[in-house]
Amino acid sequence: MTETPHPMYTAHADTLARALTAIAERGYWSAYPESPSPRVYGETAAAQGEAAFRALLGNRYPLDQPGTVDWVATEASPFGVDLGVSYPHGDVDALVTAARAALPAWRDAGPQTRVGVCAEILARLHANIFELANAVQFTSGQAFVMAFQAGGAHALDRALEALAYAYAEMSRHPGTAEWEKPAGKGDPLRMSKTFHVVPRGVALVIGCNTFPTWNSYPGLFASLATGNPVVVKPHPGAVLPLAITVRIAREVLAEAGFDPNLVLLAVEAPGEKIASTLALRPEVRIVDFTGSTEYGDWLEANARQATVYTEKAGVNTIVVDSTDDFAGLCRNLGFSLTLYSGQMCTTPQNILVPAGGISTDQGHKSLDEVAAGIAAAVGKLTADPARAVEFTGAIVNDGVLARLAEVGGDVVLESRAIDHPAHPAAVVRTPTIVKLAADAVDTYGREWFGPISFVVATDSTAHSLDIFRETVGRKGALTAAVYSTDEKVLDAAEEAAVDAGVHLSCNLTGQVFVNQSAAFSDFHASGANPAANAALTDGAYVAGRFRIVQSRRHLPA
Amino acid sequence: MTETPHPMYTAHADTLARALTAIAERGYWSAYPESPSPRVYGETAAAQGEAAFRALLGNRYPLDQPGTVDWVATEASPFGVDLGVSYPHGDVDALVTAARAALPAWRDAGPQTRVGVCAEILARLHANIFELANAVQFTSGQAFVMAFQAGGAHALDRALEALAYAYAEMSRHPGTAEWEKPAGKGDPLRMSKTFHVVPRGVALVIGCNTFPTWNSYPGLFASLATGNPVVVKPHPGAVLPLAITVRIAREVLAEAGFDPNLVLLAVEAPGEKIASTLALRPEVRIVDFTGSTEYGDWLEANARQATVYTEKAGVNTIVVDSTDDFAGLCRNLGFSLTLYSGQMCTTPQNILVPAGGISTDQGHKSLDEVAAGIAAAVGKLTADPARAVEFTGAIVNDGVLARLAEVGGDVVLESRAIDHPAHPAAVVRTPTIVKLAADAVDTYGREWFGPISFVVATDSTAHSLDIFRETVGRKGALTAAVYSTDEKVLDAAEEAAVDAGVHLSCNLTGQVFVNQSAAFSDFHASGANPAANAALTDGAYVAGRFRIVQSRRHLPA
Repeated sequence: MTETPHPMYTAHADTLARALTAIAERGYWSAYPESPSPRVYGETAAAQGEAAFRALLGNRYPLDQPGTVDWVATEASPFGVDLGVSYPHGDVDALVTAARAALPAWRDAGPQTRVGVCAEILARLHANIFELANAVQFTSGQAFVMAFQAGGAHALDRALEALAYAYAEMSRHPGTAEWEKPAGKGDPLRMSKTFHVVPRGVALVIGCNTFPTWNSYPGLFASLATGNPVVVKPHPGAVLPLAITVRIAREVLAEAGFDPNLVLLAVEAPGEKIASTLALRPEVRIVDFTGSTEYGDWLEANARQATVYTEKAGVNTIVVDSTDDFAGLCRNLGFSLTLYSGQMCTTPQNILVPAGGISTDQGHKSLDEVAAGIAAAVGKLTADPARAVEFTGAIVNDGVLARLAEVGGDVVLESRAIDHPAHPAAVVRTPTIVKLAADAVDTYGREWFGPISFVVATDSTAHSLDIFRETVGRKGALTAAVYSTDEKVLDAAEEAAVDAGVHLSCNLTGQVFVNQSAAFSDFHASGANPAANAALTDGAYVAGRFRIVQSRRHLPA
Repeated sequence: MTETPHPMYTAHADTLARALTAIAERGYWSAYPESPSPRVYGETAAAQGEAAFRALLGNRYPLDQPGTVDWVATEASPFGVDLGVSYPHGDVDALVTAARAALPAWRDAGPQTRVGVCAEILARLHANIFELANAVQFTSGQAFVMAFQAGGAHALDRALEALAYAYAEMSRHPGTAEWEKPAGKGDPLRMSKTFHVVPRGVALVIGCNTFPTWNSYPGLFASLATGNPVVVKPHPGAVLPLAITVRIAREVLAEAGFDPNLVLLAVEAPGEKIASTLALRPEVRIVDFTGSTEYGDWLEANARQATVYTEKAGVNTIVVDSTDDFAGLCRNLGFSLTLYSGQMCTTPQNILVPAGGISTDQGHKSLDEVAAGIAAAVGKLTADPARAVEFTGAIVNDGVLARLAEVGGDVVLESRAIDHPAHPAAVVRTPTIVKLAADAVDTYGREWFGPISFVVATDSTAHSLDIFRETVGRKGALTAAVYSTDEKVLDAAEEAAVDAGVHLSCNLTGQVFVNQSAAFSDFHASGANPAANAALTDGAYVAGRFRIVQSRRHLPA
């Protein structure tokens, strides 16, 4: 039962080995350069990728998969670009049946081959990173550089990270073992044991509108590598990045000698609720979901035949106690609020500041001065429209605009509409900052996804930590940060973060931002608070995607 | 944040290191000698252990824990011995509150200290193994040697195995890491990251009547080692082995400087349903259960705030195709059916034999000859009462007797009552074997826990494999075996076992039995079929019992 190395494994063995080291050390590492510069990717890559993307617009997406009955087009670009791509759509039964049929040969190929083929899919996606970045940009509303990084390089890093965890988990036990038990004066008992890695069944990945690749890749590749065929159900607003992904995966699988139906795209016609139909299928044994708390909770409660991994919503919180770099604090937080117009699941929402103000390297700052400092940093980033849109991108959908219209109170910074210089139909909004009293928990105690943040006036830093603990404990959070020059406060914040189960960043005043997590080093989400039931990526994220089934027989004495 | 090694860790570091090697290699290893011989444990150990056990009878069990309102005694020994031990009983609120309060200091002690303290608990249990074995024997009905092995040495091995997995999982990531990202021409970005292992909350372990220690220890120690306080809810019929366990755990925890309320006993008064009350508490975030499918399914459906690990019932199956050692086959299966009167979750129930018989080293054997051969082996083991009871032990409860009375059909071997030479009030029954047609799936397609097995006449081995796949796929199984001299049949059986998700033993004719699994080498249950949703022990069994919460801050440039 020894596996002959598959050529795709051999080709990527070094990368996989390096990734295995990275997940064990969790220092800095990246496999896919994040700079779209011609110096890194060559002079022609950007134009070729954009041309490949443009060629798709207005056409049927070239995807030959079973069960296609008709073609649907559901995307509306936040940049106002007419996408007009239609996708094969049809019979859920046919998709699930085709996926299930592909399982045994993929299972029997073994961990090493599966991981090698998955690594080749990543390499092929990387070769098409500019096309992918354009697709992410024009469906999610991210600015180009962010789409290239978060939607391209970082998504691939997260995918490779999941692949490494899956490989580590599958190979922590040998494929075979000899067992020899002493038996007193007689011959020892000798057995040969074989340990099969057995996938759970069909896996379903439900993508989101804002990060169609970054949030989908870890689950997709963790499930595929562990032997499960994957049905990818994209958000109706961001199909193209995942259609490209599915097409490339299918090509590589076929080249490697496997059934391409191991990866299938399941788009939905408006109102079809195909995600729910798929999630309740008995063949579907794994679900990965990123999106609203309401739907994530529904999946957890109803897709009982499956193991369900969810990333939902929360109230990301910043505790401001004091700082020795007030300008850096304002710049750093201002950038975090502005990036992608706050449409990241990791964007800070609640900035807790003592009503009496804070001490800084610029002397005492009142709460209003703190709020004004952050607002000024946002204002500076967004003053020039051409520069602003490279940070803000565009607004992903009308839900965000509705929340912007709804939010009220003591406005520190008004949201402004900006005309996008390159895309006149783009919907662009700058962040708003609203000042609230600590008792306005009905407002700040829930998520306002989009460019909406609150400066909350608390009695003291101790009070801030109480609010932090209470709101995050109840509603969850994906990120948290603290600013303090006092080690005791930093320790208390860390203890509160551990109690609430949320990752904490301390005194970020430079080029690391609370809303960014680095693959191979930072865990994204923790699974320890209501915002998510899993982390990207740890052992728990991969270990439940397969089981071990053993056989044993005697060896000759 | 470096941990100074706790003395209990230092004391057991070598054992833990050896256990970590064992779980990675999965060859033969054992930390606790399974022979109760005086040559191993000393001349006085057996008598002292029995005396310690006898001293407990008729008394209040010495356990000082919070919330005790009254004392309850619920055990009735299958051997007819009057146990009369009463246990503290009372306020669920007080137990859960005390457990929750003990969490932070235990969490903050870190993985190494926790694992060291847990290893010391195991060593202390081992020092009391004869007392423990008596307690298992007289509550479960196991014969002494089995109680010593399965309830003592093997249970401790399984506990240590779970401890090793927990330690491996917690230490696969460093406690701290440095991250240095190149930043073009500027100084690199440098951060220090701390990764906290954070337990899920209070863990609940629900024990069973037949294997109070063996089935409870893995979950208990996996949860405790990962930082979760554990409330142990024993079966009302087998409290004493877990009361001893809880007492010793509390003593060691207190000695080590921790709150003894990290391990608590929650006995129930008759009809109280305290397991359900505990399982639904919001503080309870992990449940480990061994027992009926009905209650396991209830826990999975209702204890939604918790991660639930269940081992339930199934239809263990033997496919008999051919053999080159017919006598060995009969002896081996006869022993498996007789051991503990078939009251193991791993005892074979359905023996699938082609109606046309099989080829053997003794020539062709008809189905009736196969059945008679197995029956004769059982008969030989149980002919002499004094010898028989050392295999059969006693019948654990009236449910088993009811099934024996209910089962009907073409009886190959009648169950007999045996007078126990040492315990006149013991309820002892030998196995029955019933012959069924393949269409009697209403009978053999469900579990008949106890000394009840079926020889099912199939059309062919291919038909046997179809039945195997179908019944195990639908009802689950913990064990399966195949007998064949044909490699193609063995391969087909292995494929069927992988498809059905059940562990397979091939051609067992010697001193390894299908109902026994060896810690550190054999996985018990797979989690891949309806009989259990988890395996003892793999990465998935421990990874979900904690989360990682990180903090990060800049390092000086």
